[in-house]
Amino acid sequence: MGRGMLAVFMKIPFAELEQTLAGVLRKLGFAEERAKLCARLFAETTRDGVYTHGVNRFPRFVRMIRAGTIDPRAEPELVAANGCLERWDGRCGAGNVNAHASMARAVALARDHGMGAVALANTTHWMRGGSFGWQAAEAGCIGICWTNTLPNLPPWGSQEALLGNNPLVMAVPRPQGHVVLDMALSQFSYGALAAYRKRGEMLPVDGGFDAEGRLTRDPAAIEASQRPLPVGYWKGSGLAVVLDMIAAMLSGGLATHQIPKDPEREIGISQFFLTIDPAGFGGAAEIADGIVASIGRYPGQRTLELRAENLALGVPVEPAVWAEVLDTAR
Amino acid sequence: MGRGMLAVFMKIPFAELEQTLAGVLRKLGFAEERAKLCARLFAETTRDGVYTHGVNRFPRFVRMIRAGTIDPRAEPELVAANGCLERWDGRCGAGNVNAHASMARAVALARDHGMGAVALANTTHWMRGGSFGWQAAEAGCIGICWTNTLPNLPPWGSQEALLGNNPLVMAVPRPQGHVVLDMALSQFSYGALAAYRKRGEMLPVDGGFDAEGRLTRDPAAIEASQRPLPVGYWKGSGLAVVLDMIAAMLSGGLATHQIPKDPEREIGISQFFLTIDPAGFGGAAEIADGIVASIGRYPGQRTLELRAENLALGVPVEPAVWAEVLDTAR
Repeated sequence: MGRGMLAVFMKIPFAELEQTLAGVLRKLGFAEERAKLCARLFAETTRDGVYTHGVNRFPRFVRMIRAGTIDPRAEPELVAANGCLERWDGRCGAGNVNAHASMARAVALARDHGMGAVALANTTHWMRGGSFGWQAAEAGCIGICWTNTLPNLPPWGSQEALLGNNPLVMAVPRPQGHVVLDMALSQFSYGALAAYRKRGEMLPVDGGFDAEGRLTRDPAAIEASQRPLPVGYWKGSGLAVVLDMIAAMLSGGLATHQIPKDPEREIGISQFFLTIDPAGFGGAAEIADGIVASIGRYPGQRTLELRAENLALGVPVEPAVWAEVLDTAR
Repeated sequence: MGRGMLAVFMKIPFAELEQTLAGVLRKLGFAEERAKLCARLFAETTRDGVYTHGVNRFPRFVRMIRAGTIDPRAEPELVAANGCLERWDGRCGAGNVNAHASMARAVALARDHGMGAVALANTTHWMRGGSFGWQAAEAGCIGICWTNTLPNLPPWGSQEALLGNNPLVMAVPRPQGHVVLDMALSQFSYGALAAYRKRGEMLPVDGGFDAEGRLTRDPAAIEASQRPLPVGYWKGSGLAVVLDMIAAMLSGGLATHQIPKDPEREIGISQFFLTIDPAGFGGAAEIADGIVASIGRYPGQRTLELRAENLALGVPVEPAVWAEVLDTAR
C-alpha cells in the first residue's frame, strides 16, 4: 500500500494480533489448533506487508462464517489419488487453512516421490497465496501453486470479466532468503487501484481501459469501467485460461465461469499445489545465490524487509478494522 | 508475422519440406531416426505458423552444427533420479531433439507416478517451445515446460539485459483441440519488433523503452535501445528470475547470467519439463470444454487454423532460406 498509508495505521505487536484473531476464531467454532493456524496466517500476511489480504480481510471472513458460507469445522477430504498426485475436496472450509493443509500434503508427497501435488476443489479464498509459497520453501521444497477466482478480469479484446485474476505463486528455497513470487494475473488489483486513487496518484504504467476504451493510467477510470488489464495483455489472458483449466480439471471443481461473482459468496474455487524436492540433487543453493548476485535483487526480498520492520515496530492495522475485530472478540 | 508477409513466401508441400530437411540432417551426421524427428519438428513449427523458429532458423542451426557448437550425435544422459523427478545432461545435442526426448521421458514417468519431470542441463535452443506442449497433450498429459535463454531482457528498473525471455509453455489435452500456451516473457520478441518495423506499423501497446527511457510503441526505437519490456513489467521480470532459478537448480546447469550472449554460441542452457497425467481422475475433458465455451476462444486455437491452411496450400517459406536449404542438401 506504501507511502502515506502508515500515518493512519495503529501498530499492534505481532503476538497480540495473532492471539486476538485466534480468540475470535475459537468463538466462531474453530478447534484450537486450527484457530491458531488460521490466525497465524492472517497475522503473518499483514506482518509481511500484504495489507490487502491480512487483517483487513478478517471482517469479511467473519461475515462469511456467520453467514454459513465458510464452514469453520470443515477439513479437506481425500477424493482420489494417482501416485504423487492427489485430488482433495475442501468442503467449503476456511481457505487459508485448507490451502495450508494442501501444501503440507504436497510437501509430504514430494519427500516420498521427488514431487507431489494436491488439486483442491470446493475451497474458499486462500487470502495471501504467497503464504503457501513461503510454507513450501521453509520445508526445503520448490513450491508452485495457483488458485482460480470469481470472474474479475476481461480477456484481452473483451469488455466482460470472463477470467479470474488467478494468482500464481512460485517459491524457491534458499538459505540466504527464500525467493517467493506471488503475482495475480491482473496488472493492478482493485485494492492497488483504490490505493493509488486515494493517494491522488496515477499508475506508473497503463492499468486498464477508461469508459471510452482507451488504455489509461487513471486508477479511478479503471475502477469505473471495471476493465483492468491482464499482465502482458494477450499473454496473461491466455495464462489465466490455462491456470483455471488445470486447477479445475485436476480438482474436479468449479471453473471461474461457474463461481459466484459476489466476493461474499466466492466459494467452490479450485486450486493446485505442486512441490518439488531438490534435496536429492546437488548444487541448488549455489546456483540460486549466483542468480541473485547477478541481478542484485529478487522476488521476496522486500517481504523480509517489511517483516523485520513490522516485527520490530508492530504490525500496522487500520483502527476501524481493529475496532471491529475487538468487537467480534468480545 | 501476419499480414503482408505471405506475398514473398513460397509454398512448399509439408512432406517435401520435412524430407528435404531430413536429408540435410543426415548429411550433417544425424542418425536416421533422429534426422527424421529433428526435421519433423522444424517443419511442424513452420507448418503451425511459428515462422520465426521453424525453417527460417534452420540455416543458423546448420552453421552451429558445422561450427561444432551443436553435436548432432549427442543424446541426453541420465545424471540423477529422485522418484518421478530426473536430472539429465543434454551434452550440447540438438535442442529440439533433446527437448522431445525429455518430454517423452516426463510423460513415461507420469504414466507410472501421476506426474513426472525432467530437468535438462547443457542443452541448446529448443526452437519452438510449443512443440513440446503439443507433444505432452497428444500423449494425454498436461505439460508444463520452460527454458532459460541467453541474457536478452532488462529486468524492470534496469537498462541492462540481465534476464532471459525464458519461454513458458503450458499445454492441456482436450479431444476437441488441445490448449497450448507458448509465451516468451518479453512482451514482443525481437522477431516481432522487426516484423512490425518492416510493415511500417506501431506496436498495439507499449513494447519497451526508447533511447530517452520513455515507454514507446515504436518497434525501431526498442530495437535501437535494446530495452524490450518484460510481460507485466515487474511481474514478468520476477517470473523470469524464478523460472531461470528452478531450471538451473534442478538440472544443475547454467543460469542465464552464465550463458554466452552470442546467439550462435547459445549453448549450455537449462530446461524443465513437467507432466501431469489426468487420466486417473474423471471429468477433465468436460471441464476444459466448459471453460472454452465460456470464453469463446483459447490458446492454441489459431495454431490449428494455420496448420490446416498450411497443410492444404503448402507451408510458406522464404525463397532465400529455401535456396540456402537446398544448397546445403546438395
